[in-house]
Amino acid sequence: MALYVQKFGGTSVGSVERIKAVAEKVKRFRDNGHQVVVVVSAMSGETNRLVDLASQINDEPTPRELDMLVSTGEQVTISLLAMALQKLGVPATSYTGAQVGIQTDSAYTKARIQRIETDDIQSDLDDGQVVVVAGFQGVDEEGNITTLGRGGSDTTGVALAAALKADECQIYTDVDGVYTTDPRVCSKARRLETITVEEMLELASLGSKVLQIRAVEFAGKYNVPLRVLSSFEDGGNGTLIIADTDDEEDSMEEPLISGIAFTANEAKLTLLNTPDVPGVASRILGPIADANIEIDMIVQNVAPAGDYTDFTFTVGKGDYKQTMKILKEQVIPDLGGGELRGDDNIAKVSLVGVGMRSHAGIASKMFRVLADENINIRMVSTSEIKISVVIDEKHMELGVRALHKAFGLDKDDIEQE
Amino acid sequence: MALYVQKFGGTSVGSVERIKAVAEKVKRFRDNGHQVVVVVSAMSGETNRLVDLASQINDEPTPRELDMLVSTGEQVTISLLAMALQKLGVPATSYTGAQVGIQTDSAYTKARIQRIETDDIQSDLDDGQVVVVAGFQGVDEEGNITTLGRGGSDTTGVALAAALKADECQIYTDVDGVYTTDPRVCSKARRLETITVEEMLELASLGSKVLQIRAVEFAGKYNVPLRVLSSFEDGGNGTLIIADTDDEEDSMEEPLISGIAFTANEAKLTLLNTPDVPGVASRILGPIADANIEIDMIVQNVAPAGDYTDFTFTVGKGDYKQTMKILKEQVIPDLGGGELRGDDNIAKVSLVGVGMRSHAGIASKMFRVLADENINIRMVSTSEIKISVVIDEKHMELGVRALHKAFGLDKDDIEQE
Repeated sequence: MALYVQKFGGTSVGSVERIKAVAEKVKRFRDNGHQVVVVVSAMSGETNRLVDLASQINDEPTPRELDMLVSTGEQVTISLLAMALQKLGVPATSYTGAQVGIQTDSAYTKARIQRIETDDIQSDLDDGQVVVVAGFQGVDEEGNITTLGRGGSDTTGVALAAALKADECQIYTDVDGVYTTDPRVCSKARRLETITVEEMLELASLGSKVLQIRAVEFAGKYNVPLRVLSSFEDGGNGTLIIADTDDEEDSMEEPLISGIAFTANEAKLTLLNTPDVPGVASRILGPIADANIEIDMIVQNVAPAGDYTDFTFTVGKGDYKQTMKILKEQVIPDLGGGELRGDDNIAKVSLVGVGMRSHAGIASKMFRVLADENINIRMVSTSEIKISVVIDEKHMELGVRALHKAFGLDKDDIEQE
Repeated sequence: MALYVQKFGGTSVGSVERIKAVAEKVKRFRDNGHQVVVVVSAMSGETNRLVDLASQINDEPTPRELDMLVSTGEQVTISLLAMALQKLGVPATSYTGAQVGIQTDSAYTKARIQRIETDDIQSDLDDGQVVVVAGFQGVDEEGNITTLGRGGSDTTGVALAAALKADECQIYTDVDGVYTTDPRVCSKARRLETITVEEMLELASLGSKVLQIRAVEFAGKYNVPLRVLSSFEDGGNGTLIIADTDDEEDSMEEPLISGIAFTANEAKLTLLNTPDVPGVASRILGPIADANIEIDMIVQNVAPAGDYTDFTFTVGKGDYKQTMKILKEQVIPDLGGGELRGDDNIAKVSLVGVGMRSHAGIASKMFRVLADENINIRMVSTSEIKISVVIDEKHMELGVRALHKAFGLDKDDIEQE
């Protein structure tokens, strides 16, 4: 007998039929002798419907009232799923975040879980009940309803699994696992049997949005085995996200690269021939951060003569124009010179893998593969388990496919398990 | 400065525009220096939508899950109304039934309020906030969400007014007060300035469904001044429902009759020539009550000879056929005889008024008025403040209009206030 926490997202519970299908799936686990806690999101479309109602009334509602409003979405789903389970003869009880004791801080619309009371859930499980919990929501110390922010249901699932010491937290979604890269771009993309938390974080933050980052961090921190599965197909194993291993011996067995992430959603800005005054980096980036613009990659070269510097960084495409304006009107006058270049037709492609820690030559192989395809590299940035390059947007898909093949990720190259 | 509890039903908050209109109305009271607690129902149609979703999943959901589901309806309204008030610059905070501490028993779908915590509301009011509370719902001792049954928002309003010692509980609805009779049947029906709780209870139970009976009882018990008003028209005084006065002097000033209720939704059954055995009434009505059929009027005549009795009673039209069957198959064989008659083309017309307590001759005048219209009376039943007659359904509207005029209720007969 194992204890599973199973999380089903909005699409998985998006209609009466799908809610019934989820109930059938949960029943099968229970029939096999397992205990199940189910975490659900609002039915797809419901949160948007509620937010739209609010926006017709008040374009700046207080976050407290917004949380009061949208938290009804999950409350509808939990009761409907409990009814669907009962219809199948499975005893089930539903709980809101407040009822189950998901205590958060008071940061409405983006609250963080502080602790979870598990006594009631445990006693229901011991009674043979399936417990259905509203994801995405909690309650602060004063009893106000809070929400964890979009996608927060994943976090609820992982946090509950940690608190209950569950054997596995299963995240059911509309994909059947984590892939080496996006199958829509590279038809030879392959589902990974396992991936480390660290790799998953790099892939998620780079655009392979299967899981909420915070949920993965949580799983890593509390050593919760986390599995991504399809809620629409039965029988697959999905992808198991495991805690990072510090044992270098183990990583010898791992492939060098786990996956390739990419995004065309950034823009690149360069200040050429900027006077290399003290604190130049903070004087460039400070005004941009002050405008709440997030900066991703940063590269700085100092010219051989030493008096001038070239400074390049990327921001989200939506912030491109505003960033250009800030550089032109504030930064360049402040620094006393510099030439501004910008490009929003770029793409970032990243190799991710804990295996590269112990292997040299990944970067040079990556550059060679791209060069063989006549793809120019505009910018490079590296971390311990990731190498990112910026290339022209038009070369993105070609680059991803070439790297996918060159690093042995194509499914033809792997024995079918 | 007065403290008002204002309750707005589903139609009054049925759209974004109407929620904004409610906010404007509340703001005007607050601008005049009053404190306001607002109680709201679910937006019209929302509860039905939710119940329909449930019925697609489970035709017999547990009442606990049903309450979990439908209680989201009011939660949506409270947050939207709080947002609408904030948009007008009025500080407002919303609370679910559980949050505000409306403690009930655990009788899901028809829970009864046991006590209300008012500390938080009072402190918000003292801070200058408008407090918006979800009607219809509460929480039991274990923290489960309960509902008070359809129309329970009225009860929430009155109970809150009692607990807060409010100056008035105002029930906003789609009519502008309580009328002497249904204006659709009698164009000369007149709005009452005041009505006693006792009269209101008789009128409500007879079909003039302006307010939930339980709310009126509550108001009477705790001496809460209760006013019915239109949420769509401004400036009217509505009808004030006042506690019964035991002071007979006062009632001298009151009109004899306050209103005329009527219904065509009953059926009449008669057992003629039934052997007058001991306990005949309970042997007739027992099997019917066992089948959960509600009996309204009962009349028994003993035949002059004393050996036989005629027994007549009414039930809801929907229970007519089943009641006939029970009489035929169980009761008559049990009593050893009797002749069965039934009629489902009847109407019940009732005069209601505390004034009739101290006046004789109301009944005889009522009978004479009906006789003058050639309306036969099939059955009579009286209580201290009510006389009901059963007549043929086809004569119902004629009878109501004739009585309305004869007892001086027509609006032409009253000076405009």
